[in-house]
Amino acid sequence: MGQKAKYNFTVLTENVDFTLHATIESLCSNMFAVAGTDARKNGISADTLMQQGRSWVLSRMSVEFDRMPEQFEQFDIATWINPHTSRLLSTRNFELIDTEGKQFGRGVSQWCVIDFEKRMPVSLEEIEPLIDPAYPCDEPSPCDTPRKIRGIVPTVTRQHKVMYSDIDFNRHVNTMRYIRMMLNTLPIEYLTDNRPLRLDIHFANECKLGQTLTINYEQRENVSMFEIRNENAVACTAAIEWK
Amino acid sequence: MGQKAKYNFTVLTENVDFTLHATIESLCSNMFAVAGTDARKNGISADTLMQQGRSWVLSRMSVEFDRMPEQFEQFDIATWINPHTSRLLSTRNFELIDTEGKQFGRGVSQWCVIDFEKRMPVSLEEIEPLIDPAYPCDEPSPCDTPRKIRGIVPTVTRQHKVMYSDIDFNRHVNTMRYIRMMLNTLPIEYLTDNRPLRLDIHFANECKLGQTLTINYEQRENVSMFEIRNENAVACTAAIEWK
Repeated sequence: MGQKAKYNFTVLTENVDFTLHATIESLCSNMFAVAGTDARKNGISADTLMQQGRSWVLSRMSVEFDRMPEQFEQFDIATWINPHTSRLLSTRNFELIDTEGKQFGRGVSQWCVIDFEKRMPVSLEEIEPLIDPAYPCDEPSPCDTPRKIRGIVPTVTRQHKVMYSDIDFNRHVNTMRYIRMMLNTLPIEYLTDNRPLRLDIHFANECKLGQTLTINYEQRENVSMFEIRNENAVACTAAIEWK
Repeated sequence: MGQKAKYNFTVLTENVDFTLHATIESLCSNMFAVAGTDARKNGISADTLMQQGRSWVLSRMSVEFDRMPEQFEQFDIATWINPHTSRLLSTRNFELIDTEGKQFGRGVSQWCVIDFEKRMPVSLEEIEPLIDPAYPCDEPSPCDTPRKIRGIVPTVTRQHKVMYSDIDFNRHVNTMRYIRMMLNTLPIEYLTDNRPLRLDIHFANECKLGQTLTINYEQRENVSMFEIRNENAVACTAAIEWK
């Protein structure tokens, strides 16, 4: 059975907003970097899969932050994948731990592998390290798996044209950019009050360079709900619960 | 006399575009992170200055990249400040060095310290580590200091509204965002051909949350020229020479 792997981070000046705390986007970006590094160490990084015309695609994710760390604060991100149970979805978990050993954040992400040519998901049994008993770890996920998001009735709508800096190695809009687009739609007080939060996000369709995206936002009591649409379909939905 | 300080980086998946090479923005961001870390180690970081109502402001910068490193490539950034010669401008230098010891990029940045209340630059003689003989290093700057940029006649103009994710710890538009806005205005071939380049950028006025910025672009032979204006004045000018 595998172990959790730990990676150390420092909140750099580029990671904070004017409250001098790490932004939601930067912490999510750190979690993604850890997913990439850990996958690479275990022979299942996107660039290895790409040699077979495949890639990882993030299907959904939930993250919880009890507090946002301060500028120059150090913290660890522990990550592990769950033992193989679903034919198409691999679950990767995250824990954010401060220098006193206290967990202040956590996340659960669910990924599939796509075959570019067939445009179909691949059975994860074909990705050997995922079923190698030495890699997955038997620890339970640290928070609820991503929750369903339904029936958004937008009260604020804005548009965003997809540009060079929005695009990832797959030529699709980078996951972090959807999070950025949503946060940029919120009244700024939500972002600067440093309230504990839970973010759930579901990805449905990819977005491409030059498309004009519509960001729909509804505030439903203490939950900020979002839907991002490309020119044809829903690209992703998300909800941020402010605690 | 001080020494160059070296910091190690890896080109992460989040740092590459779909050519799988580091973006200009990510390398500039790495150089900025190094400037912040090195300043902090020597007691002159922005958060220390802020306790006295002061902050570093980047005045101008030049960077040269002979090539863009590939995904997962490791490299070092060496940095040092020049001995104190100008009353108001401190010069910080950068060298980017690959794992074979070859320099593939370099930069020169010129900074001043602003007193927030007086809204005036501070004499750098008041910042003790800058005149401490143990800190500045006597090595010459690795490339020409930032060149003047004049007389832009825009052929492309677009607008950008300043949002939460554009703002830095000072409540002004983050330096990296200006670079992002300029690159997003270019025909994409310039960014994906991986040509050697030199970027010169001058900062004139700050931009704030909610302002609508105008990005003006002119292609003059092999030089891409930019001017970004806020609602009242020129915020910055820049030129990228493609070699």
